[in-house]
Amino acid sequence: MNYRITLAYDGTNYSGWQLQVIQSTLQGALEAALKRLEGAPVTTFAAGRTDLGVHAEGQVVSFRLTKEWSDKGLQRALNGNLPPDIRVMEASRVADNFHARAGAKSKLYRYRIFTGEVMNPLWVRYAWHYPYPLDLEKLLEDSRVLVGTHDFTAFTVSDCTTRTRVRTVTEIRIECDGELLTLFFSGDGFLRYQVRTMVAALVEVNRRRSRAGSIAELIERRDRKLIGASAPALGLTLLKVEY
Amino acid sequence: MNYRITLAYDGTNYSGWQLQVIQSTLQGALEAALKRLEGAPVTTFAAGRTDLGVHAEGQVVSFRLTKEWSDKGLQRALNGNLPPDIRVMEASRVADNFHARAGAKSKLYRYRIFTGEVMNPLWVRYAWHYPYPLDLEKLLEDSRVLVGTHDFTAFTVSDCTTRTRVRTVTEIRIECDGELLTLFFSGDGFLRYQVRTMVAALVEVNRRRSRAGSIAELIERRDRKLIGASAPALGLTLLKVEY
Repeated sequence: MNYRITLAYDGTNYSGWQLQVIQSTLQGALEAALKRLEGAPVTTFAAGRTDLGVHAEGQVVSFRLTKEWSDKGLQRALNGNLPPDIRVMEASRVADNFHARAGAKSKLYRYRIFTGEVMNPLWVRYAWHYPYPLDLEKLLEDSRVLVGTHDFTAFTVSDCTTRTRVRTVTEIRIECDGELLTLFFSGDGFLRYQVRTMVAALVEVNRRRSRAGSIAELIERRDRKLIGASAPALGLTLLKVEY
Repeated sequence: MNYRITLAYDGTNYSGWQLQVIQSTLQGALEAALKRLEGAPVTTFAAGRTDLGVHAEGQVVSFRLTKEWSDKGLQRALNGNLPPDIRVMEASRVADNFHARAGAKSKLYRYRIFTGEVMNPLWVRYAWHYPYPLDLEKLLEDSRVLVGTHDFTAFTVSDCTTRTRVRTVTEIRIECDGELLTLFFSGDGFLRYQVRTMVAALVEVNRRRSRAGSIAELIERRDRKLIGASAPALGLTLLKVEY
């Protein structure tokens, strides 16, 4: 039987999603909990393989179990076997052909930046401390240049092995609450580090610290070396996946 | 010389504001940092003596130092001597007669409630998990009954030793973002546990689980025993003090 769950997690204490031999990962924690339910190893497929330190409120994962579980029963059994920083928010049985990774049509990510000079201790775990004022008008303008279908080579790791680096960013929304800036990125899919590198580029261009003159030039030149370090993982949260 | 600082802190790891012999408190941490600057013990006065586990974004504290410090110099020296979960957001020299506690004219507190069935791991430290739906219309109506000048005896500890239990709540504002409810309480001052007990009462009355029929009756009867446990500390943050 094929199941789909929606996961929320605080990524602070994990080495990202994907199984690794030594480190503690989110996939590892989930598969350990599933093994206790199934009595045998279970392989999971996640919509987004979030990197080390990235959080989620709406990660979607699918897997097969031999036993039949009710939605609530599976949710409760998993939450009883998972640490409190990983929670199953929803669970349901789905059609046999559902695959959380292959079937994902669009994703929504949130990135938080705290721009105050001194970091607010209540945001330490969930926002990037970037203690410089940003020009909100320019941020909105520049973000509109990223929206659309582009080759995002400049915004991913240089050894990115995907077939194509063309992706579509459908929307970037920005909210401002005092010194806390929140950016929402929607798209059909994102390359590795793409959201965090877009955030770094937006901030560099905003403060006129970019090696390129504009976001358009960055897209055009397709050179990752024109952008500095990508924005830290702790500011990023996978909010939603649509199918 | 008399100084005033604005403090933000994550209260999770402290036994509240006030000095105690054994536990680690916020006042203790601040006075230890001040002692390193002054070379002698310094006594501090805080606008709100926040209880164990309560957070702050705008706590105000005053104290005297013999040395003259620039605003930025004092802020940086203190932040260099404080743990990262306590931050001085502002510092300034003030008139000799300024006293952070005695002079406070009004305070603003925030209380967060997460009403989803399963707790969102990203809110674990900062919101009360109350996994039942609340009637927002009724919450707004009931909160309006608390606003005004009342004897708040029902909403404080039974051994409350203040001269009078009459206080004025000037405004209660409620924001709703999915399963996260945020309540803002403004007033001329609050009794011990008052905000957290008002939250507990609002929630009990909302779900018709109250031993009294209404908020008005609770105010009227002045009996703390009519309300269950006050809402947990971790949902509460002192946001602002005005003088």
